[in-house]
Amino acid sequence: MTGAPVGNPDPAVDRALAAAESARRPARRASAGERAHWLRAVADRLDASSDPLVALAQEESHLPEARLRGELARTTFQLRLFAERLDDGTLLDDRVDVADPEWGMGPRPDLRRAHVPIGPVLVFAASNFPFAFSVAGGDTASALAVGCPVVVKAHPGHPRLSRATATVVVEALAAAGAPDGLFGTIEGTEAGVLAVQDPRVKAVGFTGSLEGGRALYDLASRRPDPIPFYGELGSTNPVVVTRDGWETRADDVVEGFTASFTLGSGQFCTQPGVVLVPDAVGFAARLEIPAVGPMLTTRIADGFAASLDAVAGRDGVEVAARGTDGAGVPAATVLRTTAERVLADPTIVTTEVFGPASVLVEYASLDDVRDVLGLFGGVLTATVQGGETPDADALEVLDQLSEHAGRVIWNQWPTGVVVSDAQQHGGPWPATTAPTTTSVGTAAAARFARPVAFQNVPPAGLPEAVRDGGRR
Amino acid sequence: MTGAPVGNPDPAVDRALAAAESARRPARRASAGERAHWLRAVADRLDASSDPLVALAQEESHLPEARLRGELARTTFQLRLFAERLDDGTLLDDRVDVADPEWGMGPRPDLRRAHVPIGPVLVFAASNFPFAFSVAGGDTASALAVGCPVVVKAHPGHPRLSRATATVVVEALAAAGAPDGLFGTIEGTEAGVLAVQDPRVKAVGFTGSLEGGRALYDLASRRPDPIPFYGELGSTNPVVVTRDGWETRADDVVEGFTASFTLGSGQFCTQPGVVLVPDAVGFAARLEIPAVGPMLTTRIADGFAASLDAVAGRDGVEVAARGTDGAGVPAATVLRTTAERVLADPTIVTTEVFGPASVLVEYASLDDVRDVLGLFGGVLTATVQGGETPDADALEVLDQLSEHAGRVIWNQWPTGVVVSDAQQHGGPWPATTAPTTTSVGTAAAARFARPVAFQNVPPAGLPEAVRDGGRR
Repeated sequence: MTGAPVGNPDPAVDRALAAAESARRPARRASAGERAHWLRAVADRLDASSDPLVALAQEESHLPEARLRGELARTTFQLRLFAERLDDGTLLDDRVDVADPEWGMGPRPDLRRAHVPIGPVLVFAASNFPFAFSVAGGDTASALAVGCPVVVKAHPGHPRLSRATATVVVEALAAAGAPDGLFGTIEGTEAGVLAVQDPRVKAVGFTGSLEGGRALYDLASRRPDPIPFYGELGSTNPVVVTRDGWETRADDVVEGFTASFTLGSGQFCTQPGVVLVPDAVGFAARLEIPAVGPMLTTRIADGFAASLDAVAGRDGVEVAARGTDGAGVPAATVLRTTAERVLADPTIVTTEVFGPASVLVEYASLDDVRDVLGLFGGVLTATVQGGETPDADALEVLDQLSEHAGRVIWNQWPTGVVVSDAQQHGGPWPATTAPTTTSVGTAAAARFARPVAFQNVPPAGLPEAVRDGGRR
Repeated sequence: MTGAPVGNPDPAVDRALAAAESARRPARRASAGERAHWLRAVADRLDASSDPLVALAQEESHLPEARLRGELARTTFQLRLFAERLDDGTLLDDRVDVADPEWGMGPRPDLRRAHVPIGPVLVFAASNFPFAFSVAGGDTASALAVGCPVVVKAHPGHPRLSRATATVVVEALAAAGAPDGLFGTIEGTEAGVLAVQDPRVKAVGFTGSLEGGRALYDLASRRPDPIPFYGELGSTNPVVVTRDGWETRADDVVEGFTASFTLGSGQFCTQPGVVLVPDAVGFAARLEIPAVGPMLTTRIADGFAASLDAVAGRDGVEVAARGTDGAGVPAATVLRTTAERVLADPTIVTTEVFGPASVLVEYASLDDVRDVLGLFGGVLTATVQGGETPDADALEVLDQLSEHAGRVIWNQWPTGVVVSDAQQHGGPWPATTAPTTTSVGTAAAARFARPVAFQNVPPAGLPEAVRDGGRR
């Protein structure tokens, strides 16, 4: 009875999930072309509504207009890229094995592996990307692309923008002829908690904190029928400046770092939070810390202050440089310590300080670097700043970082996650709950699509994608 | 400190995991060509040892020699197929996006998505395939193919065969130059429980019962650092005989069913356990139930008897036909009931009876079929037996079955799971714990490979697979 509708104690959650459930079959039956049309319709209507949406986003998030316009452009680009991959048939890994009586382990029947939607998807929106990781963001695009109804648990940091965006999405989908109930939203922490446990929900996408994500992951895993929980939980994103990098590119490195760690007031899950450097005093001396903008919410501002104080208060950690603060605006801060201290107290580098702060860790040797990196669990990104080309040290560090990170970067900075086919935004725990998946890029769609092998099924019974003469 | 070695309270588990941990980096650094060489070396040595291995397997599993020889051939074929896909570069979904200043959302850096091994993998072997889903089976092949060390928790149903197979694997890997410690085994339920919780284990493959799988899944999910748990837990595998199928192919259908439900004494997770038929009395009258062989273990024989009694004892369930039994050999049994009874008491069709038994469910209408199928959660396979080509009823049933099953079959039988690229062996809960993955076929390797995007990394720092002029 796993799939049978049941009620939910919260009437608003129940309505949203009943609607999603009613859209489940019609959405599954929609062709790839129809789904591409839905995505483009949402993108077009978001673009057409950009002025009022960006104005609302500015008001609620305190982020600058240019950033928000860029983020909305990213969001509509993302929807259209998924549509394009539906059109060219490369969004999912469909496979055809025609019958082969000579197959090496005995006759092979005709087998065609296509994908069906996993079912209604619950998406927890993030605070820090009010467009790209919120109501019409990457998780929503991924789920709609493969034919899953979506219920978004809106982030309380931008409630009016969430409602306005939801209206745009619902109207666009209706105008595009998508099934009724395909998209809805719910609000409130308790509603989210109840929705994760509802048997109609078949998968969860989450972007947010380690604590919140872990609590919801636990609920999803403890259901009588556990479901996949794709949680992106944040990261401290180490950067290693090699000796060669420091000797040949110090000014570049410090400048690039400064721009990256303060971008968006440091409110990125890819923000470079820990920088291993051969000369922390020299690094600090070169720093010119800019003023940053206000934080997204009071809660995030308070969390930043508390976690920064916690790290700054550890033995052997000093303030290396601070920007100016103002009314409601934090001072961007760079701390400084040594590899020796970190090895004695790993929390200095494993505590995520969400906001404009980073820790410089001075190392004396490549062994120090190895040992400090060994303290990290999973991280979303890891960066090496080296010389013009990687020397032996840089190659070793790049190699070690690939054990921890979802994305490994050479001589660029981790903030900014391009939406493309080869993108990977993920990593081992505690960066995510699902290390083999990505939440950004076209490969993200596979999280919500379930492979089904059709054996000996005539064309009339096959999904379009795996018919002879079909898309592939 | 997620990745840091720690001890395990069980010394044998600790030794096995210390060895796996010591092989982790060397295995990660092995090229695709080297890994293909390991797999072929294991296959070759298994083939060379087939006589003593099959003899041991016969003794411990009570399965017939021909079946065991076929299963060993399947096992070595599987290892070689993974090697072939490593050679041709198609085993994993690596992707290259070269830098593109004109990319629609702003300049795109050079991004190359390759895969790294997830880390040491713990494999729980199954009882019912002493070769293909045991020590050197599909999970082991998948993990070794992508460079993960493997520790197999051997199944107690064939302990001597497990040890002999492990010796073959270890010797073959050593001779092939694979890293020391790449492969090991542990024994005992408690050892498995301790190993799942060990921080050195980064993913689990499991084939077995719903109860055992759920308990281990819970342990994996409740770790301080939760890890992916790929559990294949079994299924009741519904078959729908359409009216057209019954009118035009009744003898074929009954004959095919009889062979399928008794194959291997019914000890397959794909065994057709529930058959929806328009005429159960007519179906039963045609049945000629063959004698079957002894069960794999006393425990499985006892479980079969108990679960068969439980289903046979439900109101409105009768015995339709029984084969002969003998010393240590169960009687293959077909039960009979109606859709009406099943709708009142769904446990009749959702209880897995592991062994040679199935339930015929007589339906009066297509609505009955729809409603009975709606009672199922996830299943590994679902089959339609129709006429020569699918009529409207058959198409509707095929469509509905794709919501529940990992494999949907037309006019063939579910037992027998070919290893190929398009195979999918999985399904929603309770068939598996990981509905977007497969445990059979080359796509199974992706379960143990973690994507990493390399951004702006020069060739010397890139994995071979995504270098320019590399394999793809």
